[in-house]
Amino acid sequence: MKNIDFYFSIGSTYTYLSVTRINDVEKQYGVKFNWKPFSVRAIMKEMNNIPFPKDKINKVNYMWRDIERRAEGYGFFAKTPVPYPLSEFDLANQVAILGLDKSWGIDYVRLTYKKWFQEGKEPAIDPSIYEICKELNLDKDEIISEANSERIINKYKSNTDSARLNKIFGSPSFIVNNEIFWGDDRMEDAIKWSN
Amino acid sequence: MKNIDFYFSIGSTYTYLSVTRINDVEKQYGVKFNWKPFSVRAIMKEMNNIPFPKDKINKVNYMWRDIERRAEGYGFFAKTPVPYPLSEFDLANQVAILGLDKSWGIDYVRLTYKKWFQEGKEPAIDPSIYEICKELNLDKDEIISEANSERIINKYKSNTDSARLNKIFGSPSFIVNNEIFWGDDRMEDAIKWSN
Repeated sequence: MKNIDFYFSIGSTYTYLSVTRINDVEKQYGVKFNWKPFSVRAIMKEMNNIPFPKDKINKVNYMWRDIERRAEGYGFFAKTPVPYPLSEFDLANQVAILGLDKSWGIDYVRLTYKKWFQEGKEPAIDPSIYEICKELNLDKDEIISEANSERIINKYKSNTDSARLNKIFGSPSFIVNNEIFWGDDRMEDAIKWSN
Repeated sequence: MKNIDFYFSIGSTYTYLSVTRINDVEKQYGVKFNWKPFSVRAIMKEMNNIPFPKDKINKVNYMWRDIERRAEGYGFFAKTPVPYPLSEFDLANQVAILGLDKSWGIDYVRLTYKKWFQEGKEPAIDPSIYEICKELNLDKDEIISEANSERIINKYKSNTDSARLNKIFGSPSFIVNNEIFWGDDRMEDAIKWSN
C-alpha cells in the first residue's frame, strides 16, 4: 500500500474537491493518504500571498466557476461563492487534528466542506459546527475546548512546520517520494509518482 | 469540427506545454484551435499580478519542477529554469501574429518554445530568432520590421482587448461556448465542454 501525505487546510477552497473525492480515489488506486491539517494561512502570510484579492476579480470569479465545473465533473456539486475567508480558520483545523487523533476526523472534514460548499455554512461556527457535532454524536463545547488545548495547538504547529520544511506553499498538497504535488488537479499525478 | 479559441502569450511558461502538444490533441479529439496571441503582460499589470515573485520562491521552484514533470508525462521534456521574464515580450508575440497571418505562425511559436525550454534560448532575440528565421526560410530583418508595423501592433492590441472582454487573466486560456478554461491542465476540460 502506497502512502501519500495529504497536507490541507480547512479554509482552502479547492480542497473541497479533494476531501470529497479522496476516499473514492484511495479505493480506485489502492493508495493511502495521511491527512495532515496545517496552517496554509501562516505560510501564505510569510510569502505575502493574498488569496482571492479584490483587484483580481476575473481570476477570483473564474476560480469559483472552475470549482463548480470540476465538482460536477467528479459527480457531485458546489454552490459558489461561499463565505470566505473563514473567521475561525485555526479552530476549524484544530478540530480536524483532534478528530484525526480519534475516529471522526475524516467525517468531520468532509461534513464541514459539504456544509460549506453545498449549503453555504461557514466552517467552525454555528450552525455548521453545531450540526456536525450532533450528527457525529460529539459534545460541541468539549470538542472546542479540547481543540484549543496546548497538545492540539502544538500538533497543528508541528504539521505547519513540517509543511514549511517540505516547501509546501498551498492547499491541498500531496507529498510522495519527496516530490510535492500542489492542487486537487495533481492528485492523480501524485499517485502515478508513488508507483 | 468544434472550434476553441486558444489565447496565449509567448512569455508564459506553462504555455510551453500547450503549444507543444496541441497539434496532437487536435488530431486526437477532432477539434480546431484558433491561435490568438495577446499580451497577458498588459492584463496582469492591470491586475497588479506579478508572476514568479521573489518572495514566493518555493512556489516558483515548484512551477519549474511541475513543468518538467508534466512535459515528461506528455512524452517530451523541459530543462528549467529558463530565461525569464522576456526582454522582447511584445516582439515575440507580434512575430507570432504576423506568422499566423501567413503560413508559418504555428511553426514559429512551437520552435520558439522548443528553443526556450529545451535549449535555454530566450524568444525573439538572437540566437533564437536568427535560427528560427533560417529554419523557416524567412528574412529576419524583414520579419522584425513587419512585426513592428502598425497593422500587426493593432491586431495584437485587438487580441488583447478581446481577451480582456472575455475576462481572460492568464495564459494559456481556452474559450469555448463562452466558458473560459485557464491553464494547460484545463485543455481537455475545454474540449469536453465543446461537445
